[in-house]
Amino acid sequence: MRIVVIGGGAAGIGAAGAAKGADPSAEVVVYTEDTDVAYSPCGIPFVHGKEIDSFERLFLATKEQYVATGIDVRYETAVEAINLSARTVTVAGEGEAAYDRLVIAAGWQYADPEVPGADLDGIYEVKYIRRAMEWDERLDSCKAAVIVEAGPVAMEMVSALVHRDIKVTVVDPAPWPMADVIDPDIVEPVRQSWEDHGVDMQWGNRVTAFTGDGTLSGVATEAGPVEADLAIIGTHKVANNPLAAAAGLKLGATGGLIVDSRMQTSDPNVYAAGDCTEIPHGVTNVPLQGLSGSHAYAQGKTAGTNAAGGTRHYRPVYVPWGMLAGEWMIGGVSFGETLATALGMKHVVGKAQGITRARYYPGVKPITVKLLAEPETLRLIGAQMVGGEGIKERADFLAMAVRVGITAEELATMENVYSPAIGALNEPISVAAQNLLAGLAGSQ
Amino acid sequence: MRIVVIGGGAAGIGAAGAAKGADPSAEVVVYTEDTDVAYSPCGIPFVHGKEIDSFERLFLATKEQYVATGIDVRYETAVEAINLSARTVTVAGEGEAAYDRLVIAAGWQYADPEVPGADLDGIYEVKYIRRAMEWDERLDSCKAAVIVEAGPVAMEMVSALVHRDIKVTVVDPAPWPMADVIDPDIVEPVRQSWEDHGVDMQWGNRVTAFTGDGTLSGVATEAGPVEADLAIIGTHKVANNPLAAAAGLKLGATGGLIVDSRMQTSDPNVYAAGDCTEIPHGVTNVPLQGLSGSHAYAQGKTAGTNAAGGTRHYRPVYVPWGMLAGEWMIGGVSFGETLATALGMKHVVGKAQGITRARYYPGVKPITVKLLAEPETLRLIGAQMVGGEGIKERADFLAMAVRVGITAEELATMENVYSPAIGALNEPISVAAQNLLAGLAGSQ
Repeated sequence: MRIVVIGGGAAGIGAAGAAKGADPSAEVVVYTEDTDVAYSPCGIPFVHGKEIDSFERLFLATKEQYVATGIDVRYETAVEAINLSARTVTVAGEGEAAYDRLVIAAGWQYADPEVPGADLDGIYEVKYIRRAMEWDERLDSCKAAVIVEAGPVAMEMVSALVHRDIKVTVVDPAPWPMADVIDPDIVEPVRQSWEDHGVDMQWGNRVTAFTGDGTLSGVATEAGPVEADLAIIGTHKVANNPLAAAAGLKLGATGGLIVDSRMQTSDPNVYAAGDCTEIPHGVTNVPLQGLSGSHAYAQGKTAGTNAAGGTRHYRPVYVPWGMLAGEWMIGGVSFGETLATALGMKHVVGKAQGITRARYYPGVKPITVKLLAEPETLRLIGAQMVGGEGIKERADFLAMAVRVGITAEELATMENVYSPAIGALNEPISVAAQNLLAGLAGSQ
Repeated sequence: MRIVVIGGGAAGIGAAGAAKGADPSAEVVVYTEDTDVAYSPCGIPFVHGKEIDSFERLFLATKEQYVATGIDVRYETAVEAINLSARTVTVAGEGEAAYDRLVIAAGWQYADPEVPGADLDGIYEVKYIRRAMEWDERLDSCKAAVIVEAGPVAMEMVSALVHRDIKVTVVDPAPWPMADVIDPDIVEPVRQSWEDHGVDMQWGNRVTAFTGDGTLSGVATEAGPVEADLAIIGTHKVANNPLAAAAGLKLGATGGLIVDSRMQTSDPNVYAAGDCTEIPHGVTNVPLQGLSGSHAYAQGKTAGTNAAGGTRHYRPVYVPWGMLAGEWMIGGVSFGETLATALGMKHVVGKAQGITRARYYPGVKPITVKLLAEPETLRLIGAQMVGGEGIKERADFLAMAVRVGITAEELATMENVYSPAIGALNEPISVAAQNLLAGLAGSQ
């Protein structure tokens, strides 16, 4: 059994490891265009921001360790074509390579801003570690950066650039940061903290060109020019599927590969995982593309297990998410009010402001929780949060609550740990649910 | 309508406020033997330990603020008897006081160690704020303390006394700290951190007398004498129900008042809330006495609402708990292996060691999660955790998981937030569930 994996990110490495686990006798080859595998690209903004002292710390394992596991990783090697009927891939510099099962984990790219000047020196897509190492040295001499749309990685880069004393201008056609995911009231403290740090935010504006003579000197926007010696691309993620499309594999509306619960594509010998796929949302059944590294890894394990003859299923997603933003943590599950309204989903809302420890305990932080429920059943359908700690754990909880159909009534009567150093008397999730129910009672 | 509340802790104050909320015209009188209400007794060990700089910070509201809410609080006033048929209470210095509805929120006391010498000066029950203020000054001159059984508050006092450079000896007949609640593998890091700080732990030993001439100079134990100028009582909580018992109200096996879901006692005009009650456990239906301040407050709101003619129900409990212990946070839900085994509950176990952020992110902490499930259904029945952060939020989640019947299979496939600064690629709850399932598969 020869299993070929295209891509060395979380999905590809997860798939390779799971395939070896399911069938230790399988020959597993991973092709990656990157110089490295087994590092955490998500850590890059924090090295730039100097929260983490070295890029070396982002590596999870050495190349030698992969050799020891029996996985054959071919670095800086592009796959140029997939031939489904011959069950081969065309590898740059190697020619045809046969597979019994193929796992496509080709990942994502930033959406092309589609404006002139994209070849100027000074435009940085935060993605690959060797490129990040080069850029990190260059940041010392950068004076002014423009953020071309404030996607999640770009939001983390805002903080990093502020920490590096680089003047930051955000140009984004949306009305507030990450407007497709987060509600304005929840992201307001982040916007405020950026403002306090001198970030120039141009919401509702759009970059129309990169300008400069060989090297970037600024951008043109609909509202006028912005001087900058650095442009960070923060456009949304698009599935990296030119190969799959050319091979005739079925893509969905998002551009992601359509897969079943076994992560099998439209070709029975081909599996896919990670950001190049699309996965149905558990509430709406709408396909989503561009989830987290944790999702990619779990999908990779599913794809690799099945490719090697095992059985593992992946489930629809409810998408807990969270991140640092400015001096805050933000996060949520599934839908906020903005997205639910845009999708025409009926919903009722409850919101609460609380605290994370006893009000007198050192390190206590504020936290705001907003819950959305389906009006008839009162089943939770989404959540939004901003605070100082405990966002990730609450998002994980609430994603499970949405999955299993927990109602606002259950959450309103939930028990919670109370101990001054680690939790407050009242849990804000519970208070938000109580407020949701009180709002319904009040409106009847 | 005249509502009398006995007790000014979280349950009594919760009841008084809820009664006023349900019926603003009601006359609400709270009798408390304490000098104050509306402070957080749970914060006392942390003021002793100097994490919190002043006892003043533990007060939630002033006495004047209570007057403004229309609640009549009578401080340092003992209720001496309850007459159910006359619907009166006998108040020290006041005589008979009539009620339409009575709420008993008389709280708890430390179990009497029942050894000679209990009247010596130098024995400290950590409970009341004015007494804590007096003791705090005295701690400066204390040299050596003995902990008489390591209940939760006493465990926090171990850390406080270590911070105050007082030599600590723990004498407890149990085999490890809080052995009725926590498993030895989970509490081992705490035991180790105490050992590192020079705490002398005498598990399986028992105090047989307090010794000294007027003032405490030590304790006698089954294993020999221990010198000490301070003894901290850390015995378990017992319900403070001599009044209720004398009045003929029905008490359960724990000594707690038996209440229905409306917190009504065996007398229809009498409600009860907090540590003087017993509440059924949601899985076993076994009555529990001595829960948290959060439980007491919620029960108080239920009792007060119903006493004032409203309707509110309290539900069986699953008891998420958590606390600081040594340099760790410990916590859990319902049962650990030790307690489940003692109760004869069949269970299967999965355990995982994980981390709370990306392994390279500053402030990352270890965390161990152990899950217990019912063998046939794989429904979660308990959890135990030890780690550096995120224990409270996970305990809240898992308590809801036990309540609604979430299975190990659901937890094994849960989604989780991955973002380097706030969460790791793999959620330890999920990995523990995966390990539980793998253990089952391996044993078949």
